[in-house]
Amino acid sequence: MVTLIANIVGYTAAVVGTSLMLPQIIKSLKTKKVKDISFIMLVFYFLNCILWLIYGILISALPVIVANSIALLISIFQIILKIIYS
Amino acid sequence: MVTLIANIVGYTAAVVGTSLMLPQIIKSLKTKKVKDISFIMLVFYFLNCILWLIYGILISALPVIVANSIALLISIFQIILKIIYS
Repeated sequence: MVTLIANIVGYTAAVVGTSLMLPQIIKSLKTKKVKDISFIMLVFYFLNCILWLIYGILISALPVIVANSIALLISIFQIILKIIYS
Repeated sequence: MVTLIANIVGYTAAVVGTSLMLPQIIKSLKTKKVKDISFIMLVFYFLNCILWLIYGILISALPVIVANSIALLISIFQIILKIIYS
C-alpha cells in the first residue's frame, strides 16, 4: 500500500518536475521580457535534466529517460528565449 | 562499475537540482526585480519539492529527504521574494 502511494507520488512529482518550466516559457513568449530570470538558474536546470537523463540511461529506467528528455527540450527552449529576448 | 558511475551522476544531479534556484534568489536579491519570473513556475517548483519530499519519506530514502527539504526551503524563499518585490 505504501509502495503504491509512493509510486503515485513519485510519478506525480516526475510530471510536475518535467513541466515546471512550461509556465515560464508561456510567460516569456507572451511578454518577450526575460531580464529578471537568472541565466545561471536556467543553465543549472539544463544540467539537472542532462544528469538525470544520463542517470536514467545508466540504470535503464525508461520513465526517468522519458521525463528528462522532455524536460531537457523544454529547458533548451527557455534558454533560447532568454538569449533571443535579452 | 556502471552502478558506481550511476550513483555519482545521480548524486551530482541531486546537488544541482537542489541548488538550481539559488542563482535566481541571488539575482532577485541584487536587482529587487522579479516581474519576468513566472509565479506558476515557482509554485510548480515548490510542489515538485513537496512531492519528492513525501516520496522520500514514504520510501525512507534519506538523501531524497535531505535534498528536497533544502530545495523546499529555497523555493519558499524565492516565492516570498517574488511576492515582496512584485
